[in-house]
Amino acid sequence: MDLGLLYSGGKDSTLAALLLEDFYDVTLVTATFGVADAWDHARRTAEELGFEFETVELNDDVAAEAVEQMVEDGYPRNGIQQVHLHALETAAGMGFDAVADGSRRDDRVPSVSRAQAQSLEDRHGIDYIVPLAGFGRGAVDSLVDETLDVTTGPSEEIPKADYEAELRDLLADEHGEEAVAEVFPDHTQTYVTSLSR
Amino acid sequence: MDLGLLYSGGKDSTLAALLLEDFYDVTLVTATFGVADAWDHARRTAEELGFEFETVELNDDVAAEAVEQMVEDGYPRNGIQQVHLHALETAAGMGFDAVADGSRRDDRVPSVSRAQAQSLEDRHGIDYIVPLAGFGRGAVDSLVDETLDVTTGPSEEIPKADYEAELRDLLADEHGEEAVAEVFPDHTQTYVTSLSR
Repeated sequence: MDLGLLYSGGKDSTLAALLLEDFYDVTLVTATFGVADAWDHARRTAEELGFEFETVELNDDVAAEAVEQMVEDGYPRNGIQQVHLHALETAAGMGFDAVADGSRRDDRVPSVSRAQAQSLEDRHGIDYIVPLAGFGRGAVDSLVDETLDVTTGPSEEIPKADYEAELRDLLADEHGEEAVAEVFPDHTQTYVTSLSR
Repeated sequence: MDLGLLYSGGKDSTLAALLLEDFYDVTLVTATFGVADAWDHARRTAEELGFEFETVELNDDVAAEAVEQMVEDGYPRNGIQQVHLHALETAAGMGFDAVADGSRRDDRVPSVSRAQAQSLEDRHGIDYIVPLAGFGRGAVDSLVDETLDVTTGPSEEIPKADYEAELRDLLADEHGEEAVAEVFPDHTQTYVTSLSR
């Protein structure tokens, strides 16, 4: 069975890939608005880990709406949620038998309800799988310690290929760096460099 | 890391074990009230699959309360939920670093809320993991087809070692076979005989 996993190069989506690899033919899929090249870091990590890798282009209008939503809210949650749902819809149309993402039990965003999951599955005739949905922060941290080498730092210095990097760029273009600092205060990111085991 | 997985010999808890085995030292734990020997079938499946196996004795008072709850309700959901939470508490006290169960995304019961999960983890200093929490019915069915040989039939003929078998026996003792038929109408069960891959 072919599975496309939305992939950022971060620890959660990498761990999700490792949990699924014995059961599916996993392709790591990095979604991009084409405004930054953070996806290239995800590609390098995917290669280092031995996974198939693809990028998929998202709709610019969704990015623009998400940026306006974040400015209006003063925090990124709802904007990132919109982009994530759009990325899932996009991945679900790529011809995989199943799509997955790296959301954890304790994530506030992205968060896909059971009804949204079932709707995605029914409309596209696929399975939608969230391998870390039943893992809390402690369990994820332990597994990461045991299996991955990671680099951690402030979001602006870490080349992680989640939507955030591109949304930050778009936000800066439209509303200036102050808007980025207001919407994303003191956020740290990690990305995976290799397997440690 | 040592992980105790509540195990019935059914397809869900067996699949959960396979998802975790690369990441934890998994012991399959079958909880029993000591009123039936269905645990022996779980032991045989565990042995066939090459997992460590233990039984753990649950509190008789919890069984008695669950049976009365089911008779009062006319359906088994709340009674089974009570027993499952008690089994998790019991497993959490056995000295493992993590405990897990085979609940799926679409299960109505057992269902452990995020707050209950976090409370279990904090009070016992363990991780609580639900490997199938992010897998819907379709995904579980596909994975079972690809990985397991299973036998399916009516609950009364399938020797699966979940609490249901023992709760049925207790219900029959206390309230007669009619009560069993009323509380558990036409329920089918599956249990795993071996790996197919």
